[in-house]
Amino acid sequence: MNETINLLMNHRSIRSYKPDPVTDEQLEAIVAAGQMASSSSNVQAYSVIAVRDPERKSKLAELAGNQRYIDECPVFLVWCADLYRLEHAVQEHLPEQESYADAVENFIVATADVTLAAQNAAVAAESLGLGVVYIGGIRTQIEEVSELLGLPELVYPIYGMCIGYPNQEPGIRPRLPLKAVLHHESYQAETTLEAVKQYDEQMVNYLSERTGGAKTEPWSKLMAQKVTTPSRMQLKGFLEKKGFNKR
Amino acid sequence: MNETINLLMNHRSIRSYKPDPVTDEQLEAIVAAGQMASSSSNVQAYSVIAVRDPERKSKLAELAGNQRYIDECPVFLVWCADLYRLEHAVQEHLPEQESYADAVENFIVATADVTLAAQNAAVAAESLGLGVVYIGGIRTQIEEVSELLGLPELVYPIYGMCIGYPNQEPGIRPRLPLKAVLHHESYQAETTLEAVKQYDEQMVNYLSERTGGAKTEPWSKLMAQKVTTPSRMQLKGFLEKKGFNKR
Repeated sequence: MNETINLLMNHRSIRSYKPDPVTDEQLEAIVAAGQMASSSSNVQAYSVIAVRDPERKSKLAELAGNQRYIDECPVFLVWCADLYRLEHAVQEHLPEQESYADAVENFIVATADVTLAAQNAAVAAESLGLGVVYIGGIRTQIEEVSELLGLPELVYPIYGMCIGYPNQEPGIRPRLPLKAVLHHESYQAETTLEAVKQYDEQMVNYLSERTGGAKTEPWSKLMAQKVTTPSRMQLKGFLEKKGFNKR
Repeated sequence: MNETINLLMNHRSIRSYKPDPVTDEQLEAIVAAGQMASSSSNVQAYSVIAVRDPERKSKLAELAGNQRYIDECPVFLVWCADLYRLEHAVQEHLPEQESYADAVENFIVATADVTLAAQNAAVAAESLGLGVVYIGGIRTQIEEVSELLGLPELVYPIYGMCIGYPNQEPGIRPRLPLKAVLHHESYQAETTLEAVKQYDEQMVNYLSERTGGAKTEPWSKLMAQKVTTPSRMQLKGFLEKKGFNKR
């Protein structure tokens, strides 16, 4: 339909990078485009740490579960939900008042704000011919990642993002049928569950083709396995210690 | 630098719409572009409810605190974090196993997933010449909004989004200086706080110009006021009741 929609429709995560650098100018354009995303009441509740130092990247790769493309990419961004600036503003302007930075509302605001900015940045990077992949693995050892990056109270790292020139051309992974996610007027539970059945078949065929006929599980079974596996259960305690999501 | 980055850099929220409709084709292209955003382990933990019915839109406008542009826009999207499909997959495939859908990790995954999709959709809409504004106000009476839209367990509405042809051309609001949000190698607390002081001055001048010289507060004071005002304190209980963010 247009250049931008074509770009969005051609997204695929990149997990192998050429050694070519990402310039400061590119990085700044990418983050500036991130900043132009909407922000809840203009709070701009996020920060991003750009890591280029090979040792630090290597340590982050290890902490994220040995994802070696973090070593390989020239720049690794760690996106953080950040209420630190706001909390400092309270100390400066209204020190006698109670702060609600620890409310679930502000946890949602910061989590959404950082994600709006990160996705704009991802789109900007791709428009420059760069590839990206989000790395949720930095939440696995979130305490160690936070210490390594010197993150203060009311800042938490939500995901990393590798950026660099692609050294692979993966296929585009099919998404759920549109009718699974787009509802009209009210939530259509039956329609969404029927669409999942279609997607299960589609993904089995897609994965089987890509793996030369190896047996694969339907998407819904993979999802069931994922949701029944305890994952990152220390997050609740960590976030509360950092001052988030308490009431 | 290119058409897409120009588009991102020219974002401004639109709060006045022409009556011209958004076609089904446009809506589907917008949501399909949203679906192409990255998703944590391909969980695709979101849904979006498209509301065109004038009565329902009017009710949502009222519930969001009488934001009349919700009435005015031809389509109002309600973006929802959605673990319902995943929970159903557990019931179908692994009914004897414990589900961790209620973990904070999955709350973050769903909140990030829906926001990645929503921002891609916002960019796609703007690329078609449409304007958008996010409406966090739907969290204020989140229980009533959820009932009106028939949202099941493990689905929560995070924000609305008005879409339509702009009937205004607002200025672009300055963002925090780049150095406030972009850190190198580790978090630079002093740098970010210095940048806030610069932004305070810049925003006072910007708002004063726009309001014909009326006195305005610096950004950090507005933020301090915001964070010390209790807001949407019922969210914690509501989300837990819906099965989110419990452990």
